[in-house]
Amino acid sequence: MSTPRPDGRVERGNRTRRAVLDRTVGIASVEGLEALSVGRLATELGLSKSGVFALFGSKEELQLATVREAGRIFTERVIRPVTADPAGIARVWRLCEGWLEYSRGRVFPGGCFFYEVIAEFDARSGPVHDAVVRAQRDWSAYMERTLTEARDAGELRADVDVPQLAFELVALMETANGVAVLHGEETAYRRARVGIAARLRTAAVDPLRVPQVH
Amino acid sequence: MSTPRPDGRVERGNRTRRAVLDRTVGIASVEGLEALSVGRLATELGLSKSGVFALFGSKEELQLATVREAGRIFTERVIRPVTADPAGIARVWRLCEGWLEYSRGRVFPGGCFFYEVIAEFDARSGPVHDAVVRAQRDWSAYMERTLTEARDAGELRADVDVPQLAFELVALMETANGVAVLHGEETAYRRARVGIAARLRTAAVDPLRVPQVH
Repeated sequence: MSTPRPDGRVERGNRTRRAVLDRTVGIASVEGLEALSVGRLATELGLSKSGVFALFGSKEELQLATVREAGRIFTERVIRPVTADPAGIARVWRLCEGWLEYSRGRVFPGGCFFYEVIAEFDARSGPVHDAVVRAQRDWSAYMERTLTEARDAGELRADVDVPQLAFELVALMETANGVAVLHGEETAYRRARVGIAARLRTAAVDPLRVPQVH
Repeated sequence: MSTPRPDGRVERGNRTRRAVLDRTVGIASVEGLEALSVGRLATELGLSKSGVFALFGSKEELQLATVREAGRIFTERVIRPVTADPAGIARVWRLCEGWLEYSRGRVFPGGCFFYEVIAEFDARSGPVHDAVVRAQRDWSAYMERTLTEARDAGELRADVDVPQLAFELVALMETANGVAVLHGEETAYRRARVGIAARLRTAAVDPLRVPQVH
């Protein structure tokens, strides 16, 4: 028997939704969220425009769903691999390495998705801007929490300025992404690793816990 | 006598050109270079579309002229004020302070013009991408030269890795711009200054030459 189950339409809708978002995160990471249009996606994916509209309702909804999907992928690739690690410098290091690998491995074809859309939406206002701001805050907050836990575990010095250190580590990672994507070269990732290791050595109770990077 | 001089048409053309570019650098710093269109500029500035076309020829020419104009303004605001300073740490510091002030003072309404358009064009190809890459390389090279001269003047340690230090200073500045524009807050500029001072103290022959920043 192959009669469709009652939820066949919903399943098809979910599949289409995933196919659309798989494409939109890629487009947005290269061209920005403004490059997303229902018509273009329908054409590229061989779907009807009304079908895409039925799923997302508006261009803004499509942009917001794309930001959410990118956040899900980012969490999966960068955050989840370290969540079970014990607090400490090794975990901070693995988080930074994971981020650099997420950029270098082009999980999104245009490099870090958020680097792209933050520059696009930073000076605007509205729900998409707010979603992007939230994603950036969440990431900064996660980095700060990871550093705080390393400090509480006794591996970073008690007087370390955590928000300052988080700012500096994120600056090294994001700039590596920007330079590497722009110039198509890998040196920037090495520079970021050298810088991150130097920052962590200065902050560490035992500098020998920080990997040697050249 | 007020008969037009023979070059009256050329002068009018130059005035119009300046008016258009004054507007395009502002638009591009907020919305990106793709947001520039001959039609939109003609409407906003009360000019004829054919007049704007006669001056710029194509959207790509308009984008390229906009990148050149932004480069001219950047040089005027950030580079020129330090060119007469003697080589040394004070000059490096003034250069970084000038950059942060250029971002904080919103010389371009969307913050650093190049931060915006680099993210927009980094993963693309073509003449506009190439112009943006060149501008970014010029700025990195200028920062490296300023650091090399400070080292040659005996103020930075002989073993300082200049490209690494330049990368780290630029990372702090650009991230401050990104975070400040995104969240509409000023803390990021203070963090950048604290980080820059710390990097220069580590690299300095005499750390007391670096300003105290809190």
